[in-house]
Amino acid sequence: MKLVRFGEEGKEKPGILDGEGRIRDLSLVVGDVDRELLGDLDRLRTLDLETLPLAPEGVRLGPCFNGIGNFLCIGLNYRKHAEETGMALPKEPVLFMKATGAISGPQDPILLPPGSLRTDWEVELGVVIGRRAKRVGVEEALAHVAGYCVVNDVSERDLQMETGQWIRGKSHDSFGPVGPWFVTADEVPDPQDLGLWLELNGERVQDSNTQDMIFSVAELVSRLSQVLTLQPGDLISTGTPSGVGMGMKPPRHLREGDVVELGIQGMGVQRQKVKRDE
Amino acid sequence: MKLVRFGEEGKEKPGILDGEGRIRDLSLVVGDVDRELLGDLDRLRTLDLETLPLAPEGVRLGPCFNGIGNFLCIGLNYRKHAEETGMALPKEPVLFMKATGAISGPQDPILLPPGSLRTDWEVELGVVIGRRAKRVGVEEALAHVAGYCVVNDVSERDLQMETGQWIRGKSHDSFGPVGPWFVTADEVPDPQDLGLWLELNGERVQDSNTQDMIFSVAELVSRLSQVLTLQPGDLISTGTPSGVGMGMKPPRHLREGDVVELGIQGMGVQRQKVKRDE
Repeated sequence: MKLVRFGEEGKEKPGILDGEGRIRDLSLVVGDVDRELLGDLDRLRTLDLETLPLAPEGVRLGPCFNGIGNFLCIGLNYRKHAEETGMALPKEPVLFMKATGAISGPQDPILLPPGSLRTDWEVELGVVIGRRAKRVGVEEALAHVAGYCVVNDVSERDLQMETGQWIRGKSHDSFGPVGPWFVTADEVPDPQDLGLWLELNGERVQDSNTQDMIFSVAELVSRLSQVLTLQPGDLISTGTPSGVGMGMKPPRHLREGDVVELGIQGMGVQRQKVKRDE
Repeated sequence: MKLVRFGEEGKEKPGILDGEGRIRDLSLVVGDVDRELLGDLDRLRTLDLETLPLAPEGVRLGPCFNGIGNFLCIGLNYRKHAEETGMALPKEPVLFMKATGAISGPQDPILLPPGSLRTDWEVELGVVIGRRAKRVGVEEALAHVAGYCVVNDVSERDLQMETGQWIRGKSHDSFGPVGPWFVTADEVPDPQDLGLWLELNGERVQDSNTQDMIFSVAELVSRLSQVLTLQPGDLISTGTPSGVGMGMKPPRHLREGDVVELGIQGMGVQRQKVKRDE
Protein backbone atom coordinates (compact mmCIF):
# COMPACT_ATOMS: atom_id res chain seq x y z
CA MET A 1 0.00 0.00 0.00
CA LYS A 2 1.00 3.58 -0.61
CA LEU A 3 -0.30 5.87 2.10
CA VAL A 4 -0.22 9.64 2.07
CA ARG A 5 -1.27 12.59 4.19
CA PHE A 6 -2.96 15.45 2.35
CA GLY A 7 -4.27 18.89 3.18
CA GLU A 8 -3.17 22.04 4.93
CA GLU A 9 -0.09 21.94 7.16
CA GLY A 10 -0.98 20.58 10.57
CA LYS A 11 -4.44 19.49 9.43
CA GLU A 12 -3.52 16.68 7.05
CA LYS A 13 -5.91 13.79 6.47
CA PRO A 14 -4.83 10.21 5.79
CA GLY A 15 -5.13 8.91 2.23
CA ILE A 16 -4.26 5.91 0.11
CA LEU A 17 -3.34 5.57 -3.54
CA ASP A 18 -5.83 3.60 -5.61
CA GLY A 19 -5.00 1.41 -8.61
CA GLU A 20 -4.83 4.47 -10.85
CA GLY A 21 -2.58 6.47 -8.55
CA ARG A 22 -5.34 8.77 -7.33
CA ILE A 23 -5.57 9.68 -3.65
CA ARG A 24 -8.54 8.23 -1.80
CA ASP A 25 -9.57 9.87 1.48
CA LEU A 26 -9.07 7.49 4.42
CA SER A 27 -10.22 9.88 7.12
CA LEU A 28 -13.49 8.05 7.74
CA VAL A 29 -11.58 4.77 8.16
CA VAL A 30 -8.46 5.66 10.19
CA GLY A 31 -7.29 8.63 12.25
CA ASP A 32 -3.93 9.28 10.62
CA VAL A 33 -0.90 7.63 9.05
CA ASP A 34 0.99 7.28 12.28
CA ARG A 35 2.28 4.78 14.78
CA GLU A 36 -1.22 3.80 15.92
CA LEU A 37 -2.04 2.78 12.36
CA LEU A 38 0.92 0.40 12.14
CA GLY A 39 -0.86 -2.36 14.03
CA ASP A 40 -3.89 -1.90 11.84
CA LEU A 41 -2.46 -2.06 8.33
CA ASP A 42 -4.05 -5.41 7.54
CA ARG A 43 -7.50 -3.94 7.91
CA LEU A 44 -6.72 -1.42 5.18
CA ARG A 45 -5.82 -4.19 2.76
CA THR A 46 -9.38 -5.45 2.65
CA LEU A 47 -10.90 -2.04 1.79
CA ASP A 48 -12.65 -1.48 -1.50
CA LEU A 49 -10.78 1.69 -2.43
CA GLU A 50 -13.29 2.64 -5.12
CA THR A 51 -15.87 3.32 -2.43
CA LEU A 52 -13.70 5.97 -0.75
CA PRO A 53 -14.00 9.65 -1.72
CA LEU A 54 -11.28 11.12 -3.92
CA ALA A 55 -9.02 13.79 -2.43
CA PRO A 56 -9.17 17.19 -4.17
CA GLU A 57 -6.89 17.24 -7.20
CA GLY A 58 -3.58 19.07 -6.70
CA VAL A 59 -3.99 19.05 -2.94
CA ARG A 60 -0.88 19.71 -0.85
CA LEU A 61 0.86 16.63 0.55
CA GLY A 62 2.18 16.60 4.11
CA PRO A 63 4.95 14.44 5.53
CA CYS A 64 3.74 10.89 4.76
CA PHE A 65 4.02 9.70 8.36
CA ASN A 66 2.86 11.70 11.37
CA GLY A 67 4.51 11.69 14.78
CA ILE A 68 8.00 10.60 13.80
CA GLY A 69 9.73 10.00 17.14
CA ASN A 70 13.42 10.14 16.34
CA PHE A 71 14.69 11.36 12.98
CA LEU A 72 17.84 9.25 12.81
CA CYS A 73 20.24 9.79 9.92
CA ILE A 74 23.24 7.92 8.59
CA GLY A 75 26.25 9.69 7.14
CA LEU A 76 28.65 8.40 4.50
CA ASN A 77 26.68 5.25 3.70
CA TYR A 78 27.29 5.08 -0.05
CA ARG A 79 30.71 4.11 -1.29
CA LYS A 80 30.97 6.79 -3.98
CA HIS A 81 29.63 9.51 -1.68
CA ALA A 82 32.16 8.65 1.01
CA GLU A 83 34.82 9.00 -1.66
CA GLU A 84 33.54 12.41 -2.87
CA THR A 85 33.65 13.83 0.67
CA GLY A 86 37.23 12.64 0.99
CA MET A 87 36.45 10.79 4.22
CA ALA A 88 37.41 7.19 5.06
CA LEU A 89 34.80 4.44 4.71
CA PRO A 90 33.13 4.08 8.12
CA LYS A 91 33.56 0.87 10.13
CA GLU A 92 30.29 1.53 11.97
CA PRO A 93 27.28 3.52 10.74
CA VAL A 94 27.84 7.25 11.32
CA LEU A 95 24.68 8.06 13.25
CA PHE A 96 23.39 11.59 13.66
CA MET A 97 19.94 13.14 14.03
CA LYS A 98 17.73 15.90 12.76
CA ALA A 99 15.42 17.71 15.16
CA THR A 100 11.87 16.77 14.19
CA GLY A 101 10.88 20.42 13.70
CA ALA A 102 12.73 20.12 10.37
CA ILE A 103 10.11 17.73 8.95
CA SER A 104 8.11 19.10 6.02
CA GLY A 105 5.95 17.93 3.16
CA PRO A 106 7.49 16.57 -0.06
CA GLN A 107 6.35 19.56 -2.12
CA ASP A 108 6.90 22.27 0.51
CA PRO A 109 9.62 24.84 -0.25
CA ILE A 110 13.16 24.49 1.05
CA LEU A 111 13.86 27.55 3.20
CA LEU A 112 17.45 28.80 3.11
CA PRO A 113 18.60 29.94 6.57
CA PRO A 114 19.39 33.66 6.67
CA GLY A 115 22.90 34.20 5.39
CA SER A 116 23.31 30.61 4.20
CA LEU A 117 25.74 30.15 1.33
CA ARG A 118 26.13 26.38 1.47
CA THR A 119 22.73 24.68 1.64
CA ASP A 120 22.90 21.27 -0.04
CA TRP A 121 20.63 18.42 -1.15
CA GLU A 122 20.73 14.69 -0.28
CA VAL A 123 18.25 12.16 -1.65
CA GLU A 124 17.85 9.27 0.80
CA LEU A 125 15.80 6.16 1.42
CA GLY A 126 13.80 6.59 4.62
CA VAL A 127 12.93 3.56 6.76
CA VAL A 128 10.07 3.73 9.27
CA ILE A 129 10.34 1.38 12.24
CA GLY A 130 7.20 -0.61 12.98
CA ARG A 131 8.27 -2.82 15.89
CA ARG A 132 10.57 -2.04 18.83
CA ALA A 133 14.08 -3.28 17.99
CA LYS A 134 16.67 -3.90 20.70
CA ARG A 135 19.78 -5.85 19.73
CA VAL A 136 18.21 -7.63 16.79
CA GLY A 137 20.24 -9.68 14.34
CA VAL A 138 20.63 -8.83 10.66
CA GLU A 139 18.36 -11.74 9.62
CA GLU A 140 15.42 -10.55 11.68
CA ALA A 141 16.00 -6.82 11.23
CA LEU A 142 13.69 -6.19 8.27
CA ALA A 143 10.76 -7.65 10.22
CA HIS A 144 10.99 -4.49 12.36
CA VAL A 145 10.50 -2.18 9.36
CA ALA A 146 6.97 -0.91 8.69
CA GLY A 147 7.66 0.92 5.46
CA TYR A 148 9.78 3.19 3.33
CA CYS A 149 9.72 6.69 1.88
CA VAL A 150 11.79 9.35 0.13
CA VAL A 151 13.69 11.79 2.35
CA ASN A 152 15.65 14.88 1.33
CA ASP A 153 18.29 15.32 4.04
CA VAL A 154 18.75 19.04 3.35
CA SER A 155 21.96 20.27 4.97
CA GLU A 156 23.64 23.61 5.59
CA ARG A 157 27.31 22.72 5.34
CA ASP A 158 28.77 25.68 7.26
CA LEU A 159 26.47 25.05 10.23
CA GLN A 160 26.99 21.29 9.91
CA MET A 161 30.76 21.55 10.22
CA GLU A 162 30.94 24.47 12.68
CA THR A 163 31.19 22.51 15.94
CA GLY A 164 31.92 18.97 14.74
CA GLN A 165 28.41 17.77 15.66
CA TRP A 166 26.31 17.83 12.48
CA ILE A 167 22.81 18.39 13.94
CA ARG A 168 23.24 22.18 13.85
CA GLY A 169 23.27 22.16 10.05
CA LYS A 170 20.59 19.51 9.62
CA SER A 171 17.62 20.81 11.58
CA HIS A 172 16.45 24.10 10.08
CA ASP A 173 12.73 24.36 9.24
CA SER A 174 12.04 22.58 5.91
CA PHE A 175 15.27 20.55 6.00
CA GLY A 176 13.36 17.26 6.27
CA PRO A 177 10.90 16.70 3.39
CA VAL A 178 9.41 13.22 3.99
CA GLY A 179 7.21 11.50 1.40
CA PRO A 180 5.21 11.69 -0.84
CA TRP A 181 4.25 8.09 -0.07
CA PHE A 182 4.63 5.86 2.95
CA VAL A 183 5.17 2.55 1.09
CA THR A 184 4.42 -0.45 3.28
CA ALA A 185 7.28 -2.93 3.60
CA ASP A 186 5.44 -5.76 1.80
CA GLU A 187 5.75 -3.70 -1.41
CA VAL A 188 9.54 -3.52 -1.07
CA PRO A 189 10.82 -7.10 -1.13
CA ASP A 190 14.43 -5.95 -1.64
CA PRO A 191 15.40 -2.51 -0.29
CA GLN A 192 18.92 -3.06 -1.70
CA ASP A 193 17.95 -2.71 -5.33
CA LEU A 194 16.22 0.64 -5.64
CA GLY A 195 17.23 3.37 -8.05
CA LEU A 196 17.35 6.85 -6.49
CA TRP A 197 18.06 10.21 -8.11
CA LEU A 198 17.94 13.95 -7.64
CA GLU A 199 17.69 16.73 -10.23
CA LEU A 200 18.63 20.36 -9.72
CA ASN A 201 16.77 22.61 -12.16
CA GLY A 202 16.24 19.59 -14.41
CA GLU A 203 19.85 18.43 -14.37
CA ARG A 204 20.42 15.01 -12.86
CA VAL A 205 23.08 15.38 -10.16
CA GLN A 206 22.47 12.26 -8.07
CA ASP A 207 21.78 8.97 -9.83
CA SER A 208 22.50 5.79 -7.95
CA ASN A 209 21.09 2.60 -6.52
CA THR A 210 20.76 1.36 -2.95
CA GLN A 211 23.08 -1.47 -4.02
CA ASP A 212 25.91 1.01 -3.40
CA MET A 213 25.11 1.26 0.33
CA ILE A 214 27.95 0.35 2.68
CA PHE A 215 25.54 -0.82 5.42
CA SER A 216 22.32 -2.33 4.07
CA VAL A 217 18.97 -1.42 5.62
CA ALA A 218 19.01 -4.71 7.55
CA GLU A 219 22.54 -4.04 8.79
CA LEU A 220 21.61 -0.49 9.83
CA VAL A 221 18.58 -1.63 11.82
CA SER A 222 20.61 -4.38 13.45
CA ARG A 223 23.67 -2.23 14.25
CA LEU A 224 21.67 0.77 15.49
CA SER A 225 19.64 -1.56 17.69
CA GLN A 226 22.87 -2.58 19.48
CA VAL A 227 23.44 0.95 20.79
CA LEU A 228 19.86 2.22 21.22
CA THR A 229 16.36 0.80 21.19
CA LEU A 230 14.50 1.67 18.01
CA GLN A 231 10.88 2.59 18.65
CA PRO A 232 7.82 2.33 16.39
CA GLY A 233 7.60 5.60 14.48
CA ASP A 234 11.36 6.22 14.44
CA LEU A 235 12.61 7.16 10.98
CA ILE A 236 16.06 6.14 9.73
CA SER A 237 17.30 8.12 6.76
CA THR A 238 19.87 5.75 5.32
CA GLY A 239 22.43 8.10 3.78
CA THR A 240 22.87 9.73 0.39
CA PRO A 241 24.70 8.60 -2.74
CA SER A 242 27.33 10.66 -4.54
CA GLY A 243 26.39 13.86 -6.32
CA VAL A 244 25.83 16.36 -3.54
CA GLY A 245 26.80 19.98 -4.15
CA MET A 246 29.60 19.89 -1.59
CA GLY A 247 31.37 17.19 -3.62
CA MET A 248 31.31 19.04 -6.95
CA LYS A 249 34.28 20.89 -8.40
CA PRO A 250 33.64 23.73 -7.96
CA PRO A 251 31.02 23.13 -5.21
CA ARG A 252 27.42 24.08 -6.02
CA HIS A 253 24.76 25.07 -3.57
CA LEU A 254 21.09 25.95 -3.48
CA ARG A 255 20.01 29.45 -4.50
CA GLU A 256 16.65 31.20 -4.33
CA GLY A 257 14.48 30.06 -7.21
CA ASP A 258 16.20 26.69 -7.70
CA VAL A 259 13.95 23.68 -8.12
CA VAL A 260 14.93 20.32 -6.64
CA GLU A 261 13.25 17.09 -7.75
CA LEU A 262 14.11 13.72 -6.29
CA GLY A 263 12.71 10.24 -6.23
CA ILE A 264 13.18 6.58 -5.44
CA GLN A 265 11.93 3.71 -7.58
CA GLY A 266 8.36 2.87 -6.50
CA MET A 267 8.24 5.62 -3.86
CA GLY A 268 7.18 8.71 -5.75
CA VAL A 269 8.79 12.06 -6.43
CA GLN A 270 9.45 15.12 -4.27
CA ARG A 271 9.66 18.62 -5.73
CA GLN A 272 10.84 21.65 -3.78
CA LYS A 273 11.27 25.27 -4.75
CA VAL A 274 14.07 27.03 -2.90
CA LYS A 275 13.20 30.22 -1.05
CA ARG A 276 14.94 32.36 1.50
CA ASP A 277 13.54 32.05 5.02
CA GLU A 278 12.81 35.63 6.02
CA MET B 1 4.85 24.15 41.15
CA LYS B 2 6.70 20.88 41.25
CA LEU B 3 5.05 18.27 39.07
CA VAL B 4 5.90 14.59 38.93
CA ARG B 5 4.79 11.42 37.20
CA PHE B 6 4.46 8.36 39.40
CA GLY B 7 3.67 4.69 38.94
CA GLU B 8 4.70 1.76 36.82
CA GLU B 9 6.74 2.40 33.67
CA GLY B 10 4.48 3.44 30.81
CA LYS B 11 1.49 3.85 33.12
CA GLU B 12 2.58 6.87 35.15
CA LYS B 13 0.00 9.23 36.62
CA PRO B 14 0.49 12.98 37.02
CA GLY B 15 1.21 14.32 40.48
CA ILE B 16 2.12 17.51 42.29
CA LEU B 17 4.15 18.15 45.41
CA ASP B 18 2.18 19.66 48.27
CA GLY B 19 3.53 22.07 50.89
CA GLU B 20 5.07 19.20 52.83
CA GLY B 21 6.74 17.61 49.80
CA ARG B 22 4.25 14.77 49.53
CA ILE B 23 2.97 13.69 46.13
CA ARG B 24 -0.69 14.43 45.47
CA ASP B 25 -2.43 12.50 42.69
CA LEU B 26 -3.48 14.83 39.86
CA SER B 27 -4.96 12.16 37.62
CA LEU B 28 -8.54 13.26 38.23
CA VAL B 29 -7.60 16.83 37.30
CA VAL B 30 -5.26 16.54 34.28
CA GLY B 31 -4.30 13.80 31.84
CA ASP B 32 -0.53 13.89 32.20
CA VAL B 33 2.45 16.16 32.70
CA ASP B 34 3.02 16.79 29.02
CA ARG B 35 2.84 19.40 26.33
CA GLU B 36 -0.95 19.59 26.49
CA LEU B 37 -0.69 20.57 30.15
CA LEU B 38 1.62 23.50 29.42
CA GLY B 39 -1.23 25.76 28.35
CA ASP B 40 -3.17 24.79 31.43
CA LEU B 41 -0.67 25.36 34.24
CA ASP B 42 -2.55 28.35 35.64
CA ARG B 43 -5.55 26.19 36.42
CA LEU B 44 -3.37 23.99 38.63
CA ARG B 45 -2.28 26.97 40.70
CA THR B 46 -5.78 27.48 42.06
CA LEU B 47 -6.18 23.89 43.27
CA ASP B 48 -6.54 23.09 46.94
CA LEU B 49 -3.85 20.40 47.06
CA GLU B 50 -5.03 19.07 50.42
CA THR B 51 -8.19 17.78 48.74
CA LEU B 52 -6.24 15.57 46.33
CA PRO B 53 -5.43 11.94 47.22
CA LEU B 54 -1.88 11.13 48.30
CA ALA B 55 0.22 8.92 46.03
CA PRO B 56 1.38 5.63 47.60
CA GLU B 57 4.53 6.16 49.65
CA GLY B 58 7.73 5.00 47.98
CA VAL B 59 6.07 4.80 44.59
CA ARG B 60 8.33 4.72 41.53
CA LEU B 61 8.82 8.03 39.74
CA GLY B 62 8.81 8.19 35.96
CA PRO B 63 10.41 10.82 33.74
CA CYS B 64 8.85 14.08 35.01
CA PHE B 65 7.63 15.16 31.56
CA ASN B 66 5.93 12.87 29.07
CA GLY B 67 6.27 13.06 25.31
CA ILE B 68 9.58 14.88 25.07
CA GLY B 69 9.90 15.70 21.37
CA ASN B 70 13.58 16.34 20.84
CA PHE B 71 16.15 15.53 23.51
CA LEU B 72 18.68 18.24 22.67
CA CYS B 73 21.98 18.30 24.53
CA ILE B 74 24.80 20.78 24.81
CA GLY B 75 28.42 19.71 25.08
CA LEU B 76 31.27 21.56 26.76
CA ASN B 77 29.11 24.28 28.30
CA TYR B 78 30.91 24.70 31.63
CA ARG B 79 34.29 26.38 31.64
CA LYS B 80 35.99 23.91 33.98
CA HIS B 81 34.51 20.89 32.18
CA ALA B 82 35.74 22.14 28.79
CA GLU B 83 39.17 22.44 30.39
CA GLU B 84 39.11 18.90 31.84
CA THR B 85 38.27 17.39 28.43
CA GLY B 86 41.21 19.26 26.95
CA MET B 87 39.00 20.81 24.25
CA ALA B 88 38.87 24.48 23.25
CA LEU B 89 36.04 26.66 24.58
CA PRO B 90 33.26 26.57 21.98
CA LYS B 91 32.30 29.72 20.07
CA GLU B 92 28.81 28.35 19.44
CA PRO B 93 26.87 25.82 21.57
CA VAL B 94 27.95 22.27 20.69
CA LEU B 95 24.55 20.77 19.95
CA PHE B 96 23.95 17.03 19.87
CA MET B 97 20.97 14.82 20.67
CA LYS B 98 19.93 11.70 22.51
CA ALA B 99 17.35 9.37 20.97
CA THR B 100 14.23 9.62 23.15
CA GLY B 101 14.24 5.86 23.83
CA ALA B 102 17.02 6.65 26.32
CA ILE B 103 14.64 8.51 28.64
CA SER B 104 14.08 6.88 32.03
CA GLY B 105 12.84 7.69 35.50
CA PRO B 106 15.10 9.44 38.02
CA GLN B 107 15.35 6.36 40.27
CA ASP B 108 15.52 3.73 37.51
CA PRO B 109 18.78 1.79 37.19
CA ILE B 110 21.50 2.80 34.75
CA LEU B 111 22.03 -0.13 32.39
CA LEU B 112 25.61 -0.63 31.20
CA PRO B 113 25.69 -1.64 27.52
CA PRO B 114 27.14 -5.12 26.99
CA GLY B 115 30.91 -4.89 26.96
CA SER B 116 30.95 -1.25 28.07
CA LEU B 117 34.08 -0.20 29.95
CA ARG B 118 33.63 3.57 29.83
CA THR B 119 30.12 4.54 30.90
CA ASP B 120 30.17 7.96 32.54
CA TRP B 121 27.89 10.34 34.46
CA GLU B 122 26.92 13.97 33.74
CA VAL B 123 24.61 16.00 35.99
CA GLU B 124 22.82 18.67 33.92
CA LEU B 125 20.10 21.28 34.17
CA GLY B 126 17.25 20.32 31.83
CA VAL B 127 15.11 23.04 30.23
CA VAL B 128 11.66 22.20 28.86
CA ILE B 129 10.41 24.46 26.05
CA GLY B 130 6.87 25.74 26.52
CA ARG B 131 6.39 28.00 23.50
CA ARG B 132 7.66 27.61 19.93
CA ALA B 133 10.91 29.55 19.56
CA LYS B 134 12.21 30.58 16.14
CA ARG B 135 15.01 33.16 16.05
CA VAL B 136 14.23 34.69 19.41
CA GLY B 137 16.53 37.18 21.08
CA VAL B 138 18.33 36.57 24.37
CA GLU B 139 16.03 38.99 26.23
CA GLU B 140 12.84 37.17 25.27
CA ALA B 141 14.30 33.64 25.36
CA LEU B 142 13.32 32.69 28.91
CA ALA B 143 9.66 33.46 28.13
CA HIS B 144 9.77 30.32 25.93
CA VAL B 145 10.82 28.08 28.84
CA ALA B 146 8.07 26.14 30.63
CA GLY B 147 10.18 24.61 33.36
CA TYR B 148 13.31 22.90 34.57
CA CYS B 149 14.47 19.50 35.81
CA VAL B 150 17.50 17.39 36.64
CA VAL B 151 18.98 15.29 33.82
CA ASN B 152 21.75 12.70 33.98
CA ASP B 153 23.33 12.71 30.52
CA VAL B 154 24.74 9.18 30.87
CA SER B 155 27.37 8.56 28.21
CA GLU B 156 29.38 5.61 26.92
CA ARG B 157 32.65 7.24 25.91
CA ASP B 158 33.92 4.56 23.51
CA LEU B 159 30.67 4.59 21.54
CA GLN B 160 30.48 8.40 21.79
CA MET B 161 33.88 8.89 20.20
CA GLU B 162 33.79 5.99 17.72
CA THR B 163 32.49 7.85 14.65
CA GLY B 164 32.87 11.49 15.66
CA GLN B 165 29.08 11.93 16.04
CA TRP B 166 28.27 11.56 19.75
CA ILE B 167 24.67 10.24 19.56
CA ARG B 168 25.88 6.63 19.34
CA GLY B 169 27.20 6.78 22.91
CA LYS B 170 24.35 8.86 24.33
CA SER B 171 21.22 6.92 23.48
CA HIS B 172 21.33 3.51 25.17
CA ASP B 173 18.27 2.53 27.23
CA SER B 174 18.42 4.26 30.64
CA PHE B 175 20.95 6.90 29.51
CA GLY B 176 18.44 9.71 30.05
CA PRO B 177 17.06 9.88 33.62
CA VAL B 178 14.78 12.96 33.69
CA GLY B 179 13.31 14.30 36.93
CA PRO B 180 12.29 13.79 39.73
CA TRP B 181 10.42 17.10 39.47
CA PHE B 182 9.27 19.26 36.60
CA VAL B 183 9.73 22.65 38.25
CA THR B 184 7.70 25.38 36.56
CA ALA B 185 9.70 28.36 35.36
CA ASP B 186 8.07 30.82 37.80
CA GLU B 187 9.88 29.00 40.63
CA VAL B 188 13.27 29.57 38.99
CA PRO B 189 13.73 33.32 38.72
CA ASP B 190 17.45 32.96 37.93
CA PRO B 191 18.59 29.75 36.21
CA GLN B 192 22.18 31.04 36.35
CA ASP B 193 22.59 30.63 40.07
CA LEU B 194 21.79 27.01 40.84
CA GLY B 195 24.10 24.63 42.66
CA LEU B 196 24.37 21.20 41.04
CA TRP B 197 26.25 18.13 42.17
CA LEU B 198 26.75 14.41 41.64
CA GLU B 199 27.97 11.74 44.05
CA LEU B 200 29.41 8.36 43.12
CA ASN B 201 29.00 5.87 45.96
CA GLY B 202 28.68 8.79 48.36
CA GLU B 203 31.74 10.65 47.14
CA ARG B 204 31.05 14.06 45.65
CA VAL B 205 32.63 14.13 42.20
CA GLN B 206 30.72 17.00 40.55
CA ASP B 207 30.02 20.14 42.55
CA SER B 208 29.39 23.31 40.66
CA ASN B 209 26.95 26.10 39.92
CA THR B 210 25.19 27.13 36.73
CA GLN B 211 27.10 30.41 37.05
CA ASP B 212 30.00 28.52 35.39
CA MET B 213 28.03 27.98 32.16
CA ILE B 214 29.63 29.36 29.00
CA PHE B 215 26.25 29.91 27.31
CA SER B 216 23.45 30.79 29.73
CA VAL B 217 20.03 29.18 29.41
CA ALA B 218 18.74 32.33 27.70
CA GLU B 219 21.67 32.33 25.29
CA LEU B 220 21.19 28.63 24.51
CA VAL B 221 17.49 29.06 23.73
CA SER B 222 18.24 32.11 21.60
CA ARG B 223 21.19 30.60 19.72
CA LEU B 224 19.55 27.22 19.13
CA SER B 225 16.46 29.01 17.85
CA GLN B 226 18.58 30.58 15.09
CA VAL B 227 19.38 27.19 13.54
CA LEU B 228 16.22 25.21 14.34
CA THR B 229 12.72 25.90 15.61
CA LEU B 230 12.29 24.79 19.21
CA GLN B 231 8.93 23.13 19.81
CA PRO B 232 6.86 22.86 23.01
CA GLY B 233 7.98 19.68 24.75
CA ASP B 234 11.56 19.84 23.48
CA LEU B 235 14.09 19.29 26.27
CA ILE B 236 17.48 21.03 26.28
CA SER B 237 20.04 19.46 28.57
CA THR B 238 22.41 22.34 29.12
CA GLY B 239 25.76 20.61 29.61
CA THR B 240 27.65 19.23 32.55
CA PRO B 241 30.18 20.83 34.91
CA SER B 242 33.63 19.42 35.62
CA GLY B 243 34.03 16.16 37.49
CA VAL B 244 33.06 13.49 34.99
CA GLY B 245 34.90 10.16 35.10
CA MET B 246 36.56 10.73 31.74
CA GLY B 247 38.34 13.81 33.12
CA MET B 248 39.79 12.11 36.20
CA LYS B 249 43.39 10.98 36.47
CA PRO B 250 43.23 8.04 36.17
CA PRO B 251 39.77 7.99 34.52
CA ARG B 252 36.94 6.35 36.48
CA HIS B 253 33.85 4.76 35.07
CA LEU B 254 30.63 3.15 36.21
CA ARG B 255 30.71 -0.45 37.41
CA GLU B 256 27.93 -2.84 38.35
CA GLY B 257 26.69 -2.07 41.84
CA ASP B 258 27.75 1.58 41.83
CA VAL B 259 25.24 4.10 43.11
CA VAL B 260 24.94 7.53 41.50
CA GLU B 261 23.13 10.40 43.24
CA LEU B 262 22.72 13.81 41.69
CA GLY B 263 20.74 16.94 42.26
CA ILE B 264 20.14 20.58 41.49
CA GLN B 265 19.15 23.22 44.01
CA GLY B 266 15.35 23.28 44.26
CA MET B 267 14.87 20.48 41.73
CA GLY B 268 15.17 17.31 43.76
CA VAL B 269 17.56 14.38 43.73
CA GLN B 270 18.05 11.43 41.36
CA ARG B 271 19.45 8.10 42.53
CA GLN B 272 20.48 5.29 40.20
CA LYS B 273 21.94 1.88 40.82
CA VAL B 274 24.21 0.65 38.07
CA LYS B 275 23.42 -2.72 36.52
CA ARG B 276 24.57 -4.56 33.45
CA ASP B 277 22.00 -4.66 30.65
CA GLU B 278 21.71 -8.35 29.81
